[in-house]
Amino acid sequence: MSETKNTARTPGSPNPGFARGFLSAAVHCGLKKGDAPDLGLLVAPVPIPAAAVFTRNLVAAAPVILSRMHVAGGSVRAVVVNAGNANACTGEQGMHDAVATAQCVADAVGCAASEVFVCSTGVIGVPLPLDLVCDGIAAAAGALTVDGADEFARAIMTTDTVPKRASATFESDGVAHTVEGTAKGSGMIRPDMATMLAFITTDAPLTSAACDHVLRAAAARTFNRLTVDGDTSTNDTAVLLASGAAGGPPIEVDSAACDAAEAAIHEVCLTLARAIAADGEGATKLVEVTVTGAQTEQAAEKAAFTVAESPLVKTAIFGRDANWGRVAAAVGRSGASLDPGALAVTFAGIEVCRDGGAVPFDEDEALAALSADEIEIRVDLGCGTAQATVLTCDLTYEYVRINGAYRS
Amino acid sequence: MSETKNTARTPGSPNPGFARGFLSAAVHCGLKKGDAPDLGLLVAPVPIPAAAVFTRNLVAAAPVILSRMHVAGGSVRAVVVNAGNANACTGEQGMHDAVATAQCVADAVGCAASEVFVCSTGVIGVPLPLDLVCDGIAAAAGALTVDGADEFARAIMTTDTVPKRASATFESDGVAHTVEGTAKGSGMIRPDMATMLAFITTDAPLTSAACDHVLRAAAARTFNRLTVDGDTSTNDTAVLLASGAAGGPPIEVDSAACDAAEAAIHEVCLTLARAIAADGEGATKLVEVTVTGAQTEQAAEKAAFTVAESPLVKTAIFGRDANWGRVAAAVGRSGASLDPGALAVTFAGIEVCRDGGAVPFDEDEALAALSADEIEIRVDLGCGTAQATVLTCDLTYEYVRINGAYRS
Repeated sequence: MSETKNTARTPGSPNPGFARGFLSAAVHCGLKKGDAPDLGLLVAPVPIPAAAVFTRNLVAAAPVILSRMHVAGGSVRAVVVNAGNANACTGEQGMHDAVATAQCVADAVGCAASEVFVCSTGVIGVPLPLDLVCDGIAAAAGALTVDGADEFARAIMTTDTVPKRASATFESDGVAHTVEGTAKGSGMIRPDMATMLAFITTDAPLTSAACDHVLRAAAARTFNRLTVDGDTSTNDTAVLLASGAAGGPPIEVDSAACDAAEAAIHEVCLTLARAIAADGEGATKLVEVTVTGAQTEQAAEKAAFTVAESPLVKTAIFGRDANWGRVAAAVGRSGASLDPGALAVTFAGIEVCRDGGAVPFDEDEALAALSADEIEIRVDLGCGTAQATVLTCDLTYEYVRINGAYRS
Repeated sequence: MSETKNTARTPGSPNPGFARGFLSAAVHCGLKKGDAPDLGLLVAPVPIPAAAVFTRNLVAAAPVILSRMHVAGGSVRAVVVNAGNANACTGEQGMHDAVATAQCVADAVGCAASEVFVCSTGVIGVPLPLDLVCDGIAAAAGALTVDGADEFARAIMTTDTVPKRASATFESDGVAHTVEGTAKGSGMIRPDMATMLAFITTDAPLTSAACDHVLRAAAARTFNRLTVDGDTSTNDTAVLLASGAAGGPPIEVDSAACDAAEAAIHEVCLTLARAIAADGEGATKLVEVTVTGAQTEQAAEKAAFTVAESPLVKTAIFGRDANWGRVAAAVGRSGASLDPGALAVTFAGIEVCRDGGAVPFDEDEALAALSADEIEIRVDLGCGTAQATVLTCDLTYEYVRINGAYRS
């Protein structure tokens, strides 16, 4: 009945659009230097079911606060996103500017301001240049197209080195549905931190409740298990919009079709999360930390995050060093229950610790294995059956350079 | 009645000993390359009151497990510490070796093995070369002296760049008491993490209960508010021994004399903690993060730790960048309650954020202020009166080099 397939696409691939039922455009409005696109607009012909998840940071940016209110009703008509200015820590002026941005979109596409979802990423603590943004919105609204997804993906980049897109398909009741996603992340723009934004569209007729259900489930195990440096942004946002343009009966929560949609959306989110980790600031490697043998999934997740955020582990991976003592120490302080005498660790498939003690390994073989672009660290806590995987990257000189360079 | 004075000493200063009532020695037994001392021995003529605090890491090293049992009775006769091998993740053999080390000391100085406190720091997962250690203990026992503290401080160093000592005095009931301390930390030896060891001695007649009380109180606000990279070692240990050699009536918990002792011991621990932070791996600056305006001291501590461990904040300090957006984002995700509209941040005395928004500042002035060796970051959460200070250092290329260098 249901089949899911993931096809990550690169820019310029045969299907450059969002899912059916969406128009998009991207323009350069002047927030980024040069002429790179810095404002993206995504529009549906009518209000459609939508859901979003946001940063849990108490210092939330104005567009996060506004969009949380706008999506609460379960439908959205348009999404606008700018790069180059986060509109965060900007006080009352920031909230005024976010509201004005929504009104610009409403005027340009003919909808209510409350139907506009606003995202920003970039410099913190600097007022949003509202005139530039509104001019950009007007230009974008005049350039909407069915194949604007690649340009949109480029418009949301900050110091991302590549645009990030993914897609998957699923079928329910004989109807083929598409899920398209684009994200930015781990790039930064001074003096900002690595904001993650993700825009997922589907032509499946998901209800608002189904959108909320599948997005939360997918984000919990993909975007929420992704860490570059443990820092979370004031602006992190992921939004799912369901146009229903593929037709078929409404897809409700707790149906087989909803499960199929969830699998496809999970796949898209996972591909985007892996792309973000691999493009982490200064990263040379994608690192996948899988903790098994935990008492609960929460404990596994906590232990995996502690390993993934350990600067000592991350520098060891950069140095291609199967330094399992650092992994053992990280899980030991993570708060997760474990049996020190049953601890096991593998680096890139090489067993280096068993029953809490060292396993001799060939250093040359380890060096070769750790020279790969993707490294898996597996840790067995030896006290249960639960597991979790967290995605991260290595910690490099380049990370220090990017984030330590004095603003000039 | 009570007066405390802190005098941090450098090696070779006039008082090179531990407090009265202690003998010490250090030798090279062969765990470190070259001829640097790598084993220290500290002995009292009789069992004396003692207390210790240990790593909370579940993957605790064998000497930690053994010493925790030995100090539980409240008295200790001798302390032995080796650098170059952590005896951690070494299984049953490791516990056997720790017990054998204690027995070597017992034989050499004529006490019970259960009166010996054992510490190790160095490489993880490699069996302790017990023969070398026992030969070193015999040699050290033959070389005990009242002025061996400087050599002891050097023996416990791993990649510490300087030995670390501190002292303070206090008076009670007309008797002058001395507190001496030595510590190592933030250096690392491959493939270990930054172990912290601290040895505090006093000639004051503290009872075992008083030792325990004052050490816990002092450690909670000094060593436990110190972070280089968030990683905690399998071997972290701080021990306090009270010889009583200065004379006077026993100092019990909840007395004015105990308060005076606590203040002096706090001062010694704080000086050592600051020395460890300043000597953090690759550090160019000591960073003091003070969070005020919190609802509780626990919340203030949590927020201060989140700022102090943020790689984005630590690289900004390295880059001499008053990047307060990263500080705001760190406290926002810390879990501490805060009022985003009342947030205030100063960097090195320069106000950069007030009422949650940017305060214009002179970039040249900020660059000059952030070029100092010690930087204070102050954050007011705007929702209470509690506060806490956490010590850390910046994150530099050198940290990545030290910890990323492939083991060769």
